[in-house]
Amino acid sequence: MLVAGRPFRSIWPAEDGRSVEIIDQTRLPFELVITRLQTLEDVAHAIRDMQVRGAPLIGVAAAYGLWLGLRERADERHLARIAETLIACRPTAVNLRWAVERVRARLEVLPSSEWLEAAFTEACRLADEDVATNAAIGRHGLALIEDLYRQKGAPLNILTHCNAGWLATVDWGTALAPIYAAFRAAIPLHVWVDETRPRNQGASLTAWELAQEGVPHHLVADNAGGHLMQHGQVDLCLVGSDRTTAEGDVCNKIGTYLKALAAKDNNVPFYAALPGSTVDWNLRDGIAEIPIEERGEREVLRIRGQAGDGRVVAVRIAPEETPACNPAFDVTPARLVSGLITERGICAASREGLRGLYPENAK
Amino acid sequence: MLVAGRPFRSIWPAEDGRSVEIIDQTRLPFELVITRLQTLEDVAHAIRDMQVRGAPLIGVAAAYGLWLGLRERADERHLARIAETLIACRPTAVNLRWAVERVRARLEVLPSSEWLEAAFTEACRLADEDVATNAAIGRHGLALIEDLYRQKGAPLNILTHCNAGWLATVDWGTALAPIYAAFRAAIPLHVWVDETRPRNQGASLTAWELAQEGVPHHLVADNAGGHLMQHGQVDLCLVGSDRTTAEGDVCNKIGTYLKALAAKDNNVPFYAALPGSTVDWNLRDGIAEIPIEERGEREVLRIRGQAGDGRVVAVRIAPEETPACNPAFDVTPARLVSGLITERGICAASREGLRGLYPENAK
Repeated sequence: MLVAGRPFRSIWPAEDGRSVEIIDQTRLPFELVITRLQTLEDVAHAIRDMQVRGAPLIGVAAAYGLWLGLRERADERHLARIAETLIACRPTAVNLRWAVERVRARLEVLPSSEWLEAAFTEACRLADEDVATNAAIGRHGLALIEDLYRQKGAPLNILTHCNAGWLATVDWGTALAPIYAAFRAAIPLHVWVDETRPRNQGASLTAWELAQEGVPHHLVADNAGGHLMQHGQVDLCLVGSDRTTAEGDVCNKIGTYLKALAAKDNNVPFYAALPGSTVDWNLRDGIAEIPIEERGEREVLRIRGQAGDGRVVAVRIAPEETPACNPAFDVTPARLVSGLITERGICAASREGLRGLYPENAK
Repeated sequence: MLVAGRPFRSIWPAEDGRSVEIIDQTRLPFELVITRLQTLEDVAHAIRDMQVRGAPLIGVAAAYGLWLGLRERADERHLARIAETLIACRPTAVNLRWAVERVRARLEVLPSSEWLEAAFTEACRLADEDVATNAAIGRHGLALIEDLYRQKGAPLNILTHCNAGWLATVDWGTALAPIYAAFRAAIPLHVWVDETRPRNQGASLTAWELAQEGVPHHLVADNAGGHLMQHGQVDLCLVGSDRTTAEGDVCNKIGTYLKALAAKDNNVPFYAALPGSTVDWNLRDGIAEIPIEERGEREVLRIRGQAGDGRVVAVRIAPEETPACNPAFDVTPARLVSGLITERGICAASREGLRGLYPENAK
């Protein structure tokens, strides 16, 4: 997508042929900093410090990290150490492990003299596959948005939560892919961007993406969506999914469930956009079965922003005596989800729906 | 309630007999600043700048403001000018106008030589009435909490949104009155404090009140409540009401509706605590009939907090190009409200329920 009018991905091989470059997402939306990663340790640091975040992007970054690690030495023992280092960066990120294992499996059938080139090729392939997957999600979602626009005959208002945009992937994003596709297809639309406390990914990343691409949008407090829906100001809710059960429950950023309840109560379509890879075919009941990460209280008690003098600082918003609790995700039961937008098409949020699109995974 | 172990009200006549003192709420939770108001203009400034806020407290502050205004001159023309000045401070605050008119009506039957003393007496009476009303809300809510505690037999978790505490009134508060009453009655309880973006009244005022009183609590992002309810971590939701329709719809701080939806979806009791004076007997359908105040975008785009060096600063959290939208309240339909806790008892959120407690207002 566009940054200052130029097309960007969130990660790409540098021109020197020996490193990769990323947009440092910890500096957004206040400044665009492009960081060069030259070593395995650089990549591990970027993942750990969330300079890159979002499951698909983390996976691709790790794949490039494996390549950079092999530049030091390409042997069995070193490969094992590299894989371990990368996976340990964010142990709960399923996608990270998957990407590392995939590159490793590719290497294991080759002589170690070919590893370096093969690792690079495989990392680039992973990146391109992610872009293709998200572009397909965008196309399928575009058809949905076109239908809604035809019915309404007036500009559409779409509400999104958190950042499931191109910064969370290599390009296009998941929830934002249909929005970008529709915007480029000249469908008049406007996006309500949920701030997404406590980490403010909506305010800092989604708003920045949309501003750079030129998509009309307004930031709203997470509290506002219900009121907007009660007054006919939301035509569609579009969110991502970190993990999806085989029955269509959607685990996504904390607060998603509240928006799904409001959508249901006001007959607003509520869709989750996701690659098939986020579906966990062994899970049925998301609320009972998905453990929710509890993050540190500091994220709730402090907010990072830009002060009047331009400096980016963290400010405390509560009394010193007040502790905080910080669940990072919640589960939206399938009964509240109008449908799932995947790279293979749109389906009902149900076992039957998912089985129709992914017959190979259905038991 | 307690501040640093000493009982406080949010406003009180100063010892000099010629002024009133308030807690400057714009400085909380970072410092306790007590400000002396000596003139009508001091009071008008305190109301306009939200050093005092909350409908009941604004009303009482205005009543004292009228008294201070009369200290300059006690004649008909000046009284009219004082009333006008005070009402103009926050033109949409129904309670402010009501309090001013009430003191004025009291004076009009007296010779102007007695106005000064009568205005002071009436302002003090208004303050005491507010305290008595809220204490009664606390007693009725306590009975509800006792019932829940008896059923559960384990510490109760109560979720509240925004600040409907003693800082919004003269003492006790509305939604927090039952919590304080239960805490003082030694019922083991813990409060989930919604941050309440965009103005953060939960993080800055409710958390501060609870910390000062010693009530166990955790701050949570507004997004977290649904997840907590899904996992049995909320036994009761307790909120205030800025305006209540004759059929029991509750207009309260933006985001209240989302919590009510989650409560309904998870069979968590959801109560609004309010004095009968917030009921607008002419309103039926809150969503259709109550105009919602749209406040400035700056409140969404910037957050005030304390930086590491101790200074309180406002930081911008979104890109410069991003505009924001800021509806201040929403309406929770009566069907989602388990009951209304008033100074006269608890009733169903319905015309019949309210009619039972306030027969004199029922048509």
